[in-house]
Amino acid sequence: MNAATGRRLLAEFTGTGLLVAVVVGSGIAATRLSTDGALRLLVNSVVTSLGLAVLILVFIQAGGAHFNPVVTAADWILGRRYGLGQAAAVIACQITGAIAGAALADAMFAEPVLSPSRHHRGGPPILLSEVVATAGLLFVIVSLSRTGRLQHVAWAVAAWIGAAYWFTASTSFANPAVTIARSLTSTYAGIAPASVPAFIAAQLAGGAIGTILAVTIYPVQCGRIQVEQPAQLAG
Amino acid sequence: MNAATGRRLLAEFTGTGLLVAVVVGSGIAATRLSTDGALRLLVNSVVTSLGLAVLILVFIQAGGAHFNPVVTAADWILGRRYGLGQAAAVIACQITGAIAGAALADAMFAEPVLSPSRHHRGGPPILLSEVVATAGLLFVIVSLSRTGRLQHVAWAVAAWIGAAYWFTASTSFANPAVTIARSLTSTYAGIAPASVPAFIAAQLAGGAIGTILAVTIYPVQCGRIQVEQPAQLAG
Amino acid sequence: MNAATGRRLLAEFTGTGLLVAVVVGSGIAATRLSTDGALRLLVNSVVTSLGLAVLILVFIQAGGAHFNPVVTAADWILGRRYGLGQAAAVIACQITGAIAGAALADAMFAEPVLSPSRHHRGGPPILLSEVVATAGLLFVIVSLSRTGRLQHVAWAVAAWIGAAYWFTASTSFANPAVTIARSLTSTYAGIAPASVPAFIAAQLAGGAIGTILAVTIYPVQCGRIQVEQPAQLAG
Amino acid sequence: MNAATGRRLLAEFTGTGLLVAVVVGSGIAATRLSTDGALRLLVNSVVTSLGLAVLILVFIQAGGAHFNPVVTAADWILGRRYGLGQAAAVIACQITGAIAGAALADAMFAEPVLSPSRHHRGGPPILLSEVVATAGLLFVIVSLSRTGRLQHVAWAVAAWIGAAYWFTASTSFANPAVTIARSLTSTYAGIAPASVPAFIAAQLAGGAIGTILAVTIYPVQCGRIQVEQPAQLAG
Repeated sequence: MNAATGRRLLAEFTGTGLLVAVVVGSGIAATRLSTDGALRLLVNSVVTSLGLAVLILVFIQAGGAHFNPVVTAADWILGRRYGLGQAAAVIACQITGAIAGAALADAMFAEPVLSPSRHHRGGPPILLSEVVATAGLLFVIVSLSRTGRLQHVAWAVAAWIGAAYWFTASTSFANPAVTIARSLTSTYAGIAPASVPAFIAAQLAGGAIGTILAVTIYPVQCGRIQVEQPAQLAG
Repeated sequence: MNAATGRRLLAEFTGTGLLVAVVVGSGIAATRLSTDGALRLLVNSVVTSLGLAVLILVFIQAGGAHFNPVVTAADWILGRRYGLGQAAAVIACQITGAIAGAALADAMFAEPVLSPSRHHRGGPPILLSEVVATAGLLFVIVSLSRTGRLQHVAWAVAAWIGAAYWFTASTSFANPAVTIARSLTSTYAGIAPASVPAFIAAQLAGGAIGTILAVTIYPVQCGRIQVEQPAQLAG
Repeated sequence: MNAATGRRLLAEFTGTGLLVAVVVGSGIAATRLSTDGALRLLVNSVVTSLGLAVLILVFIQAGGAHFNPVVTAADWILGRRYGLGQAAAVIACQITGAIAGAALADAMFAEPVLSPSRHHRGGPPILLSEVVATAGLLFVIVSLSRTGRLQHVAWAVAAWIGAAYWFTASTSFANPAVTIARSLTSTYAGIAPASVPAFIAAQLAGGAIGTILAVTIYPVQCGRIQVEQPAQLAG
Repeated sequence: MNAATGRRLLAEFTGTGLLVAVVVGSGIAATRLSTDGALRLLVNSVVTSLGLAVLILVFIQAGGAHFNPVVTAADWILGRRYGLGQAAAVIACQITGAIAGAALADAMFAEPVLSPSRHHRGGPPILLSEVVATAGLLFVIVSLSRTGRLQHVAWAVAAWIGAAYWFTASTSFANPAVTIARSLTSTYAGIAPASVPAFIAAQLAGGAIGTILAVTIYPVQCGRIQVEQPAQLAG
């Protein structure tokens, strides 16, 4: 493993961890401060959206800021710019980082750490929601990548997830690593471990649909893209 | 029909469908979670705004991301870059996509699918509101196009619609395809089928006013514009 | 008066009118839908912020999108790119447009049109608030102009006003034309006519402070700036 | 002290002062208008986020828009582009500006000026929260700087702080100058003077962690960066 790969793995671990800390922590704070269900979810969705945007912005130059095994899988299949071993290591770091992030949020709020959730989620409408949410997420990422416009990806992904919290019935997990981590917090954002496998299956199906749709609508890849053009250097 | 036209039609179908799913779905979720009317509409407007922004960003390079028959009509009249047949096909895809999106939202929330709304909306103040909302929408789009600044269109349209939800009395439908589709959901965002024709007439009048105003204020077209400059390619 | 000046006046009339319609209309809607004072002001501030951003974006290329006599005065004093007669005409259009916008909002919500407000606002803390709000507004605009970064002005002004609604005690009118117009609506956003002169005096003082501060911190003007670079033309 | 340094100090004094005025003033307004704890904090966080974004945008070209001793310390250690004396003067201006800003907010709302807070904050979860919030803040700033993408810093910092208000348990002070100033207001945003030292210690520890992480993930500095490219000059 060279140094760049090590930095990528550290970025994926840290970024996914902070993303889960944002999701779980804001859920705890909102639950403590209000009894209104819409206000709680509004806080949770807006904060997740802001957190996603900034985390993508700051980690994207260290290997893509995937934070999501479905994204890494699609990137690997479409691009093959790195080996299967690196893709697997990235996903392992996403999952362990996500679990660490859930623990960090619970520690910041003095909640039990790594406590399994008892919040069962499932049924066809909920799983359909996960398919739609993940399909849209992958469509956003792959479309912007293929049209050479990754400079928009941070705010576009943030907007999609912020909206999907509300217009789907599952509040849009759309991420297997985050789903696994959320099974280990017995707070607002939790999901019972028994509900996780069906969620992940729905997310994988959605990811495939979104990726295929993006490749269909944008059949021509604009070549290998530099993520963003640095600001002009002074002198 | 060549392949590019097919991709455009698929993009208009999918994008308009997801836009309606965002509008209808977030209305259902907000209604279930809160009894406060302002909080419900705040959620509905913010989520629609985020959804519009991201959908325009990701579909714009596949034929313009109109999602709206009034926009397609103005674009065709001002530009004539494609035949009347293609314009009609685009509008047909917007309408069928919108209906599919309403059905998708209702399915995700286990609501009756394709059930007509009984929510009557109308009267001069409401119809004046639709004129203002659609005039502003067309002014935004045509002005940015004519001044060669379509890189702003996604967030500008999102901001306009997000504001128009509140500062008009109709909550700003501003889109005949979306209006038709919203007549087929008996949830928060619904509109009774009998109210639809007057809404569409007001939207067409508003669209004409906004387009004429934009052409008046910006009489010189900056030439044919590439939607957005792709990020610099790496070596 | 040449055609470009005519278009500028039309733009200032329409833009200021829509700005006031956004402020007044969203206040009416929020008042009708909720009794919570914070939720009402949150809606009013967020919607005004979105409206300001999009209106500046779409009108800026037709003469600056000032919508505000204090901004026009500062622009004229600092730049002298047009005669005093044009500046006066611009301000007259801002005021008449603002009044028309208040009437439009009241018409959309079936409220009495051009009805004087009975909402008295004033006292040293409130007037100090108007000084601070207007000083900040002018500092934002003049600073971005002098550093050649007017591409940020729409969202920066929107963010400033959105914040100033809350961190000042006056909810930040910061605009004499808008203040006059808001004296002619007996709804949430109204201000009693007798309260207007002190507000305008505070706004002028604040505008002077903000402009002087900007010129002090950025003493070197980056030359005459083109507002924004059009997107690349396609072939 | 040359003129540019004087302007930088004035910018840091004014910018930090307005930042604190935004934080304290919006807290007072939210507390007066609602009893719902989540709505109060939502207002406080959204308004702080908007205020931070615009203040960074308008002051950044006058010496960096740090507004935060931890940021100035990291910048000085990593860059050494100015002497220790200037760094100390900058921090002194941040602290005095912050205190003036708290007094300004209290004056605008007719609250007692420079009155010490009695709101005790502390304990391991709260202090851990300050470590996380400040580490993230420094990671955001240093990463964007090292990758030559400071054009994103205003909205990225705003998003981080807006999110950190909620996903940490301390509401994310993350700034020693702001913390000191908030000890001198007996309103919503206050912190008891006795709680300040531990907060500052946690912020310094977090700042060090975030800076080291950014240097680890982005070991190569993209050279000295011009903050932003001015818009194209006309003729």
